Amino acid sequence: MLRFIALSGTISVTENLYVYEADGQMMVLDCGVGFPDLEMHGVDLVIPDFSYIVKNKEKLAGIVVSQGHEDHIGAIPFLLKEIETEIWAAPLVTGFLKDKLDEFGIKNYKINTFQPESAQFEVGPFRIQPFRVSHSVPDSCGFAIDTPEGRVFHVPEHKFDQKPADGRPFDLDRAKMLAGQKKVLFLASDCLGANKPGFTEGEAKIEDNMEGLMKNAPYAVFATAISSNIGRFQQMINIAHRLNRKVVLVGRSIQKKIEIAYDLGYIKIPHNIIITYHDSQRFKRNELFYIVSGCYGQVGSSLYRISLGEHDRVEVAEGDVLVFSADPAPPYSKESQDFVIDNLIDKGVDVHYYDLHEGLDEGIYVSGHGGQGDIVGLFKIVKPHYFIPIGGEIRYMKSYLDLAIDFGANPADIFRLKPGESVVFENGNAYLGERVMTKQVLVHGLGIGDVGKVVLGDRAVLGNEGVVVVVFKVSKGKKLAANPEIISRGFVFEKVNKELLSQAERRLSEQVKKKGKFDKASLHELGMNYLSNFFFQKTGRRPMILLVVVEV
Amino acid sequence: MLRFIALSGTISVTENLYVYEADGQMMVLDCGVGFPDLEMHGVDLVIPDFSYIVKNKEKLAGIVVSQGHEDHIGAIPFLLKEIETEIWAAPLVTGFLKDKLDEFGIKNYKINTFQPESAQFEVGPFRIQPFRVSHSVPDSCGFAIDTPEGRVFHVPEHKFDQKPADGRPFDLDRAKMLAGQKKVLFLASDCLGANKPGFTEGEAKIEDNMEGLMKNAPYAVFATAISSNIGRFQQMINIAHRLNRKVVLVGRSIQKKIEIAYDLGYIKIPHNIIITYHDSQRFKRNELFYIVSGCYGQVGSSLYRISLGEHDRVEVAEGDVLVFSADPAPPYSKESQDFVIDNLIDKGVDVHYYDLHEGLDEGIYVSGHGGQGDIVGLFKIVKPHYFIPIGGEIRYMKSYLDLAIDFGANPADIFRLKPGESVVFENGNAYLGERVMTKQVLVHGLGIGDVGKVVLGDRAVLGNEGVVVVVFKVSKGKKLAANPEIISRGFVFEKVNKELLSQAERRLSEQVKKKGKFDKASLHELGMNYLSNFFFQKTGRRPMILLVVVEV
Repeated sequence: MLRFIALSGTISVTENLYVYEADGQMMVLDCGVGFPDLEMHGVDLVIPDFSYIVKNKEKLAGIVVSQGHEDHIGAIPFLLKEIETEIWAAPLVTGFLKDKLDEFGIKNYKINTFQPESAQFEVGPFRIQPFRVSHSVPDSCGFAIDTPEGRVFHVPEHKFDQKPADGRPFDLDRAKMLAGQKKVLFLASDCLGANKPGFTEGEAKIEDNMEGLMKNAPYAVFATAISSNIGRFQQMINIAHRLNRKVVLVGRSIQKKIEIAYDLGYIKIPHNIIITYHDSQRFKRNELFYIVSGCYGQVGSSLYRISLGEHDRVEVAEGDVLVFSADPAPPYSKESQDFVIDNLIDKGVDVHYYDLHEGLDEGIYVSGHGGQGDIVGLFKIVKPHYFIPIGGEIRYMKSYLDLAIDFGANPADIFRLKPGESVVFENGNAYLGERVMTKQVLVHGLGIGDVGKVVLGDRAVLGNEGVVVVVFKVSKGKKLAANPEIISRGFVFEKVNKELLSQAERRLSEQVKKKGKFDKASLHELGMNYLSNFFFQKTGRRPMILLVVVEV
Repeated sequence: MLRFIALSGTISVTENLYVYEADGQMMVLDCGVGFPDLEMHGVDLVIPDFSYIVKNKEKLAGIVVSQGHEDHIGAIPFLLKEIETEIWAAPLVTGFLKDKLDEFGIKNYKINTFQPESAQFEVGPFRIQPFRVSHSVPDSCGFAIDTPEGRVFHVPEHKFDQKPADGRPFDLDRAKMLAGQKKVLFLASDCLGANKPGFTEGEAKIEDNMEGLMKNAPYAVFATAISSNIGRFQQMINIAHRLNRKVVLVGRSIQKKIEIAYDLGYIKIPHNIIITYHDSQRFKRNELFYIVSGCYGQVGSSLYRISLGEHDRVEVAEGDVLVFSADPAPPYSKESQDFVIDNLIDKGVDVHYYDLHEGLDEGIYVSGHGGQGDIVGLFKIVKPHYFIPIGGEIRYMKSYLDLAIDFGANPADIFRLKPGESVVFENGNAYLGERVMTKQVLVHGLGIGDVGKVVLGDRAVLGNEGVVVVVFKVSKGKKLAANPEIISRGFVFEKVNKELLSQAERRLSEQVKKKGKFDKASLHELGMNYLSNFFFQKTGRRPMILLVVVEV
């Protein structure tokens, strides 16, 4: 018997975590973070619910990691705080992971580094053979996994780009070889591009297109991409080399990722081309190429500060060229990205960005995810009996289902799983297994999982309506020692609305005296009711009211 | 001398308000609202800063309105609270406006309704001749305005669609006639589509495309669009008629707008085709066509509730067809729109929506704004000396500038204005005039302009980090009468973190006793410093701390 649990990572694009169970043992595939939605005020990260893994930790044989993006590796430090286990990852992923675990101060761990071209290794009852896929970060892998119920394929992301910017194409030969050796029980694969017709375009042309925009630049050139996009940085460095420009890396995340990739041989950097801020001062602006972090315009990022003229070492000037090799930001950062673009244009920078809704596609960005052509192409290679769409939202799972049916699959053989849902495979049959109950675990500051509905509900009120604190001073529980004292924050502008608050104090005092009850419960009830009505009538707002009763 | 002030409406797509000044008099063109960005917690609306108009109210000859969208008419009630003036508007715009003023309880106003085909009227020193343009709401107009410095053209939105869904195309003849009579001094026109190649596609095909998706629907059909899109509703009703389905209008905003448009003859509704919820129960699901409000998935909208199965009178079922004839929602509502789409798909509804980034374009939506072809087409008709891009962000103003230069304009004759900036025209010359200082005026509940930086700053902290209230009881200013009492909201989950808070109470008490100062200022300073450090060390969070000192 084999059980596949989508513990997390379906119905959203992030937070990947899948569990394989057989012979009383368990393997985790990927362990990534998610990002807070707009309702999760103050939350830094969302991580999968590890309760099931922790409860069964003695069964856990290890974690296999498919690639180096945060939504595949970012939650590993949190899991390692709770359990000990081994990790398997490709070289660059190992590099990123070590750096991350270091940041978290986690020292006791074991990573087994595998070569995607040739490796095979065992994790508990599972024999695993990776193969290289093309994605927006090097060393991304798919896996052929031999289980007691047969061979399965797990491909969290892929496109078939044969000339990717990182020089490491999808390993078609090995994938075909692995798929051809045995009948494949199921394929779990990326559904994110399931609405997009055709194949995702190759990355090679991006280099030409960016160079075309930069080659006549009269002053400085800037370019930005997500910090793990090593292939894109390679292309930028190639361009800088041909244009005889020195490269300045701006932003810690980019500096670090490029350093790791360079040390491991994943990026080729001509001698002396990368220079420091300090050295850049010896060059003219038309001899410089800045690679900058903050492509989503994240508040506080290097690019954000540059766009405001607030970066202490780098500035843009009229006539500079700046290329965003990135997609439009997700909703939580889109306003900020737009703000940055507009600021730069306002400073006279020649800004190029990709946005199909605005009609802008200069060939300076392509997705890391495959389109319908890539998805069905994988079906053709793997020819699985069962299909499991992963890594996408409900809409994409539906479109993947349609693609699989078109491909000839029986609708009953396609499993669209919600988080915690599982499929059991037994003697060639498959059926829905027990669902593991999971919840979203929110990380805020040092707290993991302690921000839930109650806290978020309070934050929504506090953040939208503000807070009013009322202090009653009561003499021996028999009368008010003074008018209640009211202070507020985020409700009205106190300086201007002093009269509103003192009116509230007087009126509330009258009400209390009229009622004649001075115990805590009565004061609470009266105060809450009276003030929420009073403030709503006067302001149309419903601040959070906190009452304190002090015996004097 | 003529002065044109972009009081509001440039650098953003909304909040249109332009001022024309000549001969000591003033005319306002459009007066719309904007929508809060993600940082404006709790804010309902943003309106232009009226200070300049109010200060010069004796000069104000009236307000001319170009169309019925909120970002052109929505701020009029707020302005009419402060001043009295006359309004000029086309019939449907008058209908929408009356309804809006009614809602605000504003009774004393005068609207002069003009016919876009033939009207000419005077507002102070300005003689105005409107002409019909095509947009996503009927009765949208451009204006030829005769000023003491010559004729100018003001076209807040337009596309050249000759077969629009509302049956009222751009009045090319009249526009050409008005432009041909005199040399045109300047054109102020919409720049929003300045990045989009070609002309915005016509709306006629949308009817065919929607019908194609609906005609074989086995059960109920649903469609949604923004509530002012009368032309689209006409198309939906046409389809329902041909498919022999009865129409149910779901959502007050749509019901109201359609009623106004019907009363004024702007929408043709076959006899008995619109039925009530109650009557709909006598029909089978495959005899019904629901037109539903909430195309951006707004929280609480009809469509939002339907998608959750929480609408009390309408529900979707597997096999229903639902068409979004709308663009992807703006950032503040995009997550919610995605949530609604996914909920509907999860319920088995066949959902069709438009999203170029997902590769989805079934011809069920087009923009109300013109593309480059429409923008330059207007240049060709008007042949102005000067150009002023309006109604777009900085990026679109820049692209409009490029289009005007391509068209042959002198770069110095194109004025990209920030809010409050003005251009003075004098004897055929033009130069930047004095800038009117403006700020953003935020509306929250009944408060207009009382939410500013201080309140928003407090809300950001309260909303992201929560609040901690500390009450010190001091005996005669000489010692603590008890340990300080701490309550919190939105900070940590109090039930679970009781120990954290009581530890804070004990430690703070020790600190205060050690320090030995019991006056308010000392307690404040100590309490704030000690607790913010304590909580940050323990939780990594920085809640707002409010201190209350009570003498007992």
